[in-house]
Amino acid sequence: MFKKIIDALTGKSHDDTPPGGSPSAPKSPGLTSGGKPSIHPSVDEGFKPGNDSFGGGILTCHCSSDPVKVKVAAQTAHNHACGCSKCWKPEGARFAVIAVVSRDAVGVEANENKLEIVDKSAAIQRHACKACGVHMFGRIEDTNHPFHGLDFVHTELSDEAGWSEPQFAAFVSSIIETGENPDNMSAIRDRLRELGMPPHDVLAPGLMDAISTHKAKQSGALPS
Amino acid sequence: MFKKIIDALTGKSHDDTPPGGSPSAPKSPGLTSGGKPSIHPSVDEGFKPGNDSFGGGILTCHCSSDPVKVKVAAQTAHNHACGCSKCWKPEGARFAVIAVVSRDAVGVEANENKLEIVDKSAAIQRHACKACGVHMFGRIEDTNHPFHGLDFVHTELSDEAGWSEPQFAAFVSSIIETGENPDNMSAIRDRLRELGMPPHDVLAPGLMDAISTHKAKQSGALPS
Repeated sequence: MFKKIIDALTGKSHDDTPPGGSPSAPKSPGLTSGGKPSIHPSVDEGFKPGNDSFGGGILTCHCSSDPVKVKVAAQTAHNHACGCSKCWKPEGARFAVIAVVSRDAVGVEANENKLEIVDKSAAIQRHACKACGVHMFGRIEDTNHPFHGLDFVHTELSDEAGWSEPQFAAFVSSIIETGENPDNMSAIRDRLRELGMPPHDVLAPGLMDAISTHKAKQSGALPS
Repeated sequence: MFKKIIDALTGKSHDDTPPGGSPSAPKSPGLTSGGKPSIHPSVDEGFKPGNDSFGGGILTCHCSSDPVKVKVAAQTAHNHACGCSKCWKPEGARFAVIAVVSRDAVGVEANENKLEIVDKSAAIQRHACKACGVHMFGRIEDTNHPFHGLDFVHTELSDEAGWSEPQFAAFVSSIIETGENPDNMSAIRDRLRELGMPPHDVLAPGLMDAISTHKAKQSGALPS
């Protein structure tokens, strides 16, 4: 009994494997040309550091006609792979790649009429193209949210080079919730480390500390 | 503006430091005799590995008379330091140290009348001594909870040696929410690594994967 519970906790239980094999096949594309677990097309073959003097660019949705265009007039920060189920990711990618930028720097340049908010109840309101489904920017309207003032953007939607490079991976365990085979997680975390993107099951420590500091100032545990 | 937001996000903003100095003094005891950030009395001077053949023992609350006694008739697992604000910790400790064991192995041996549930609405119902406040065991009654069947116990309440050793640190950033100085976090995480307890801001990856696997089977994302 006890052993069984601990095995289940650590994902080793035979109960995790139904008759016929593993719970789910790896997502397509499961592996890179080099035989590594695929993370996202923009990082699978490696990537260059961002350019500190880079000033931003234009994000374009995937529509072949009348695409939505969003101008991001600043370099991004905290770019990372995200395994959560709400972030937009290209077909077949295990992770989204997403960064933050001051909302003051974000503006819709074309076809704003094609945008809709995916889930108005979510803390991050993701403004997506109704036609192609691509998320153009995520915005926090709650002024009490620790990240209010920052928009979330996918710089892969831009042709410009120099955007801040991915620095970590967030919500890694969450990819299981959209069907990833739990048996693949060790190899996926190893690959993220190999790419210089340390895996975390929430955000990176610096951001988690910022969230806790915000909460502590609101509660009075720290001086505001 | 942008720089200020990013500094705030990464905890570097001058706004974090009110006139007069840092937001809060390190908790007492802030440092070990060796000058390291104190984690918990049971780990600060190092600790021995658990004994695989250890069969359990008796947990005793801090009351000098009529103490509550709880028998744990098995070795524990997943012992770890926890920074959450709900786990019981001894006076002055930055972290709780807490392990899991099958609920079948846990029984109250003496003075059960002194026990009360701290927060009936919490997923983990912490049964505490009304007199001294020590938490004797935490139990999950929700049969749909991924950890249902496991109780949470503080083996420091036992005189026996051989309990499973702490293996990681969980909810590390959360100590800020009870007043830790954010400026101390880097040294605290370094100390946890030095002690062989890798710091995480949720649970350890194996447990987070187990939780996500449980959710995926409930949602149908993975075969149940």
